[in-house]
Amino acid sequence: MKNLVIVNGEISDSISVYDRGLAYGDGVFETVLANNGKCLLWDRHLERLKKSLEQLQIATDELNNLYPVLKPYLPPEAEQVVKIIVTRGNSQRGYAVEADSTPNTLIYITEKPKPVQDWAKIGARAVFCKTRLAYQPSLAGLKHLNRLEQILARLELTGHDLQEGIMRGQQGEVVEGIMHNLFFVKNSELFTPDLSQCGVAGIMRTFIIENCQQLGLPLHIGEVSVEQLLAADEIFLSNSINVIWPICELDGTRFEIGTVTSQLQDMVVEKMYRYG
Amino acid sequence: MKNLVIVNGEISDSISVYDRGLAYGDGVFETVLANNGKCLLWDRHLERLKKSLEQLQIATDELNNLYPVLKPYLPPEAEQVVKIIVTRGNSQRGYAVEADSTPNTLIYITEKPKPVQDWAKIGARAVFCKTRLAYQPSLAGLKHLNRLEQILARLELTGHDLQEGIMRGQQGEVVEGIMHNLFFVKNSELFTPDLSQCGVAGIMRTFIIENCQQLGLPLHIGEVSVEQLLAADEIFLSNSINVIWPICELDGTRFEIGTVTSQLQDMVVEKMYRYG
Repeated sequence: MKNLVIVNGEISDSISVYDRGLAYGDGVFETVLANNGKCLLWDRHLERLKKSLEQLQIATDELNNLYPVLKPYLPPEAEQVVKIIVTRGNSQRGYAVEADSTPNTLIYITEKPKPVQDWAKIGARAVFCKTRLAYQPSLAGLKHLNRLEQILARLELTGHDLQEGIMRGQQGEVVEGIMHNLFFVKNSELFTPDLSQCGVAGIMRTFIIENCQQLGLPLHIGEVSVEQLLAADEIFLSNSINVIWPICELDGTRFEIGTVTSQLQDMVVEKMYRYG
Repeated sequence: MKNLVIVNGEISDSISVYDRGLAYGDGVFETVLANNGKCLLWDRHLERLKKSLEQLQIATDELNNLYPVLKPYLPPEAEQVVKIIVTRGNSQRGYAVEADSTPNTLIYITEKPKPVQDWAKIGARAVFCKTRLAYQPSLAGLKHLNRLEQILARLELTGHDLQEGIMRGQQGEVVEGIMHNLFFVKNSELFTPDLSQCGVAGIMRTFIIENCQQLGLPLHIGEVSVEQLLAADEIFLSNSINVIWPICELDGTRFEIGTVTSQLQDMVVEKMYRYG
């Protein structure tokens, strides 16, 4: 099946020049893994989408139509990435929101790209990025369309054999990867940074948080320093598409792909495919 | 003349769904006042556009074509607003920039809207917004497309008879208006907030800074507190379209439209029309 984009219910390759996603990044997105004809963890993605739109005061009653619209384009046997963008809609120049604006919904369906290497097995190489994340509690956690910090951070990796960059907050504390959330293991306990000031609260992050106790792993969500991270026994990345990638090297320090990460990988993959 | 949009040199009302401005707010914009067939302060706008694109590492050699492309749509006797968006171009999913991506350029030409009242004469009413500006030195000063903070702040004004909201930084210091930069006058001296951590360094702000000495006004650029601002003799807003708007009321406190503001208005308007 070809890659395609569905704009407000119709297959299209264009959107209005008056869209506020273009003008201001005024919208949110979701990236969902589809396998064998269905979107995995769909109700969680839909729930986050609803909450994000509410927080930005974007009202739409089209969300429950998303799945019926995209389902026919998910063939069995395929592994695909479904990216959904919802913007506040079109408007004339100016930040003010017009009372009758209707959100625009874009659904991008692509084949899941085959990575050069199986990073989930061999581990990803990462560095700390120079670009820091700003503290903005009004937007923290949301997967919104204002992503220039991630673009600048990703540009730092250009030309290097690196699969991820680790981003810090303005005070230097560890927050997340450019494209993934971040966890580490120390003495059989699991740690992940708090995201109340910045960062994206990933669906896979939440899924891991909710399921890690099944492996008897105590969990700590809080401030994480560079020193703590570099002293970890294991480090791994998470997102909805790659699920869990161990980190095998961070800023020149080597890390083992440990048993906790491997056990979590097995459990999460099994659960998310069963969960549907 | 009708409102129109020129996309990469051709009149169009749509843009690719793969544009990175839509996906990530990955681009910058300029808003320029055009009068009697020419864009005012054009070389300053072009210079800022170049610098902003450089800072975001967006390379384009199309900038010198902008004026020849838009000039035919600026009739004499008209007052228009020219908004230019330059995005990094199209790409597939993912933050990584493709080596061969070509920036997209959009030029929106609209009639200058007639405000309900002549705010430049009678003064604007404003409040302090709850939404704060995050500190992000990597993006501070740029007129980039990540504008969710301004959208949230502007939503606070919905349903109120207010022409502007004043935005503060994370520490509570005064930074700018949602749509304007901010100046105040105290004891015949001029003050405007420093923008090294957040805010947009407006063309009109710079034009005022460069020309205020002609009126014998000492200028201070630095941190501004809410208390300082509320104790001002005069407050005014600036941007390229509205030029200078006095503030007549801020958070319930009344302000006179003072002689310094009026003198600056006269001088700036005269200079910018002469300057071209």
